[in-house]
Amino acid sequence: MNKTNPRIMPGFMELLPENQILFNSLIDMIRETYESFGYLPLDTPVLEYSDVLLAKAGGETEKQIYRFEKGDNDISLRFDLTVPLARYVSMNYNNLVFPFKRYQIGKVYRGERPQKGRFREFYQCDIDIIGEKLSFVNDAEILTIIYSLFKKLDFGKFTIRINNRKVLNGFFESLGISDTESVLRVIDKVDKIGIDALKLELSKLSLNDETINKIIDFISISGSNEEVFDLISKLGIDNNTFNEGVSELKFVTDYLDTFKFDRDYYKIDLTIARGLDYYTGTIYETNLDDYKSIGSICSGGRYGGLTKYYSDYELEGIGISIGFTRLFSVLLDLGVISPSTKSVSSVLIVPFSESNIGYCNEIAETLRDSSIKCEIYYEDKQFKKKLNYANRLGIPFVCIVGDDEENDGKVTIKNMISGEQVTTDKDKIIDLIK
Amino acid sequence: MNKTNPRIMPGFMELLPENQILFNSLIDMIRETYESFGYLPLDTPVLEYSDVLLAKAGGETEKQIYRFEKGDNDISLRFDLTVPLARYVSMNYNNLVFPFKRYQIGKVYRGERPQKGRFREFYQCDIDIIGEKLSFVNDAEILTIIYSLFKKLDFGKFTIRINNRKVLNGFFESLGISDTESVLRVIDKVDKIGIDALKLELSKLSLNDETINKIIDFISISGSNEEVFDLISKLGIDNNTFNEGVSELKFVTDYLDTFKFDRDYYKIDLTIARGLDYYTGTIYETNLDDYKSIGSICSGGRYGGLTKYYSDYELEGIGISIGFTRLFSVLLDLGVISPSTKSVSSVLIVPFSESNIGYCNEIAETLRDSSIKCEIYYEDKQFKKKLNYANRLGIPFVCIVGDDEENDGKVTIKNMISGEQVTTDKDKIIDLIK
Repeated sequence: MNKTNPRIMPGFMELLPENQILFNSLIDMIRETYESFGYLPLDTPVLEYSDVLLAKAGGETEKQIYRFEKGDNDISLRFDLTVPLARYVSMNYNNLVFPFKRYQIGKVYRGERPQKGRFREFYQCDIDIIGEKLSFVNDAEILTIIYSLFKKLDFGKFTIRINNRKVLNGFFESLGISDTESVLRVIDKVDKIGIDALKLELSKLSLNDETINKIIDFISISGSNEEVFDLISKLGIDNNTFNEGVSELKFVTDYLDTFKFDRDYYKIDLTIARGLDYYTGTIYETNLDDYKSIGSICSGGRYGGLTKYYSDYELEGIGISIGFTRLFSVLLDLGVISPSTKSVSSVLIVPFSESNIGYCNEIAETLRDSSIKCEIYYEDKQFKKKLNYANRLGIPFVCIVGDDEENDGKVTIKNMISGEQVTTDKDKIIDLIK
Repeated sequence: MNKTNPRIMPGFMELLPENQILFNSLIDMIRETYESFGYLPLDTPVLEYSDVLLAKAGGETEKQIYRFEKGDNDISLRFDLTVPLARYVSMNYNNLVFPFKRYQIGKVYRGERPQKGRFREFYQCDIDIIGEKLSFVNDAEILTIIYSLFKKLDFGKFTIRINNRKVLNGFFESLGISDTESVLRVIDKVDKIGIDALKLELSKLSLNDETINKIIDFISISGSNEEVFDLISKLGIDNNTFNEGVSELKFVTDYLDTFKFDRDYYKIDLTIARGLDYYTGTIYETNLDDYKSIGSICSGGRYGGLTKYYSDYELEGIGISIGFTRLFSVLLDLGVISPSTKSVSSVLIVPFSESNIGYCNEIAETLRDSSIKCEIYYEDKQFKKKLNYANRLGIPFVCIVGDDEENDGKVTIKNMISGEQVTTDKDKIIDLIK
């Protein structure tokens, strides 16, 4: 028979069991953290009508989309979780309680050219809070959520960088710049390209040297919160948007103090621009201090007009997103994370002969009743091969059950790491393994 | 601005938060049960090369597939989790430990005509054990897994019906039937169409009346295990395949006795045929006793040649699959299951004024440290509206925090169901809520 070459497409991540176990445990932490703050789960279809998913999109996004026709339908694969959220909130407005807090962890699709570190199918882990006019305390709480999450995930020291879109927009307005969008897009790249290339890019936007220097000076402002606000106020800028942005930023950072938020874990950074046009206030990026080249691992902000393409509801949101597939893949490559086990089982139960299988099952039931995951080796192999299965999967305990054990209501437990072996009463097994 | 009508495609399930919470809790139970038996997680791409996914398929399946081209690639959405498993095992053979036990819970896609109860995107929850020659004890353990799972899911009394493909094939051979596949496909429908229609369908396969009657008599055999085996042996059939099948069925049911498996929850049923051609031994279907019209809610069996389209490895498998989206949707419609909460939070913390928000956060941290999910109401609304948020979401406890509470290190807890309200020390809150 002709064989088909078994392969997957480039840009799609598929893991061996040990890495999948690790991946799932991290996703579980994300989910638990999101839920611990009261965010509700949501699961939307991967396939949607193209006109719905593309109600707003254009340009780059549209080119990357997986889109096709079937029957009379023009169908696309979702490319993010924000557009489906906007559609969902518009459809279900009357059945939702606002502020509506939801998280969604799911795969999204972008048909990009395959290249190292780019995925065509990847998990996004998003939270968003949606309401009519959301308190700015929410902007501060988002940092608490990011902090809580990355502390648990334990990828090393991280810094959340915050800024406010109105501060940037207002500043550009005060300089007489009309196309603030383009300037934001350029500034968004400063981490990657550096100051010199930034100057060059800005000059292409036909800004004069004085303006460019003012921009560079402004985004280079840094220091403690107090120092930053002091330097900003010394600029004496008289622009409403700017002043609003500064007082929002002040409000949010003051609340971080109220929350006793560790200042080591965040800083005001005026280079943070988030190119997407829908942001209207606080914006966030998060970096791992020891692996800055990864770029932002968790970004987001406050945005307006969420549902405007689908309805007349006036809603705004605050959200963050983690592109988890890339993050996982990079951290695994770097050795920051690594699988600790190849199995979900804590115990392998090995019957000496077929006649012991019934007793083995009693033991398995006892273990499972105490939430200890276990399995029984049923195959008719040499005893060595049975132990080898546990060894290869890194199952820490093996219960050996022969006629002696069964007749006496006992079980022999071998610790596969220390090699230690003890025979004990069947009902003592839980204590021994825990 | 022109609005796009917010809608999803027919045949795609999307839930309100209360139903999503319920859905997730059931999926969690499935996952936990599968893991408690040592099955390893797997997550394969939704999109694959069409030649890989369709290496075997043909006919009906192929028509239903979502398939499209992008760039030079001919791409399809997976239509089950078994083909990706075969491809995965072929690709990763040398990195897997056999017997390889894996579970996968994920969405699959079938572009069927939309009709009631049919989904185009639905979750399958599969387990499979893969190896070279798997012990028949595994066939018995699968029933233990199904039993354990549906006991936990608590959808009411269920019956697992088992049969063996060799018994049917051997019996048909003994009657001189050459096209056993077609007969199996017809018998597979007996639950839906009844005996009279079955006779008619069989006669269309140009079988004579005597043969048809023998088939009907045979598949109508029922009773206790002992009675069934007794009636079968009285037929005096001399066919190797048949005899092999009967002794496998005997072996499996004997092991169920060894496992002290409650006979109320399964029966030998010779009408079970499972039309798919790859089954080679034990086959299973599961029905809810009180909702037979739903059809089988968990089916599977032993199959051969898993990887033959991709490799020369000689592997067989035993697996079961639950089409969970349809099951969930039907049970929800029938009222067998219903959401118990609209929120994941156990506690809503309500600051009386903005100045109490810092103290509210301390309380929230205390609760979260004890794994109690909670949220703080930050919006600047009337007190009544704040309580109303908890009421509408069914959050059972509200912590009210004003200056009195904050100054005294106390908290007022209102039980939203009983209406009872007590003021207590901040550190006693965990005990009170637990």
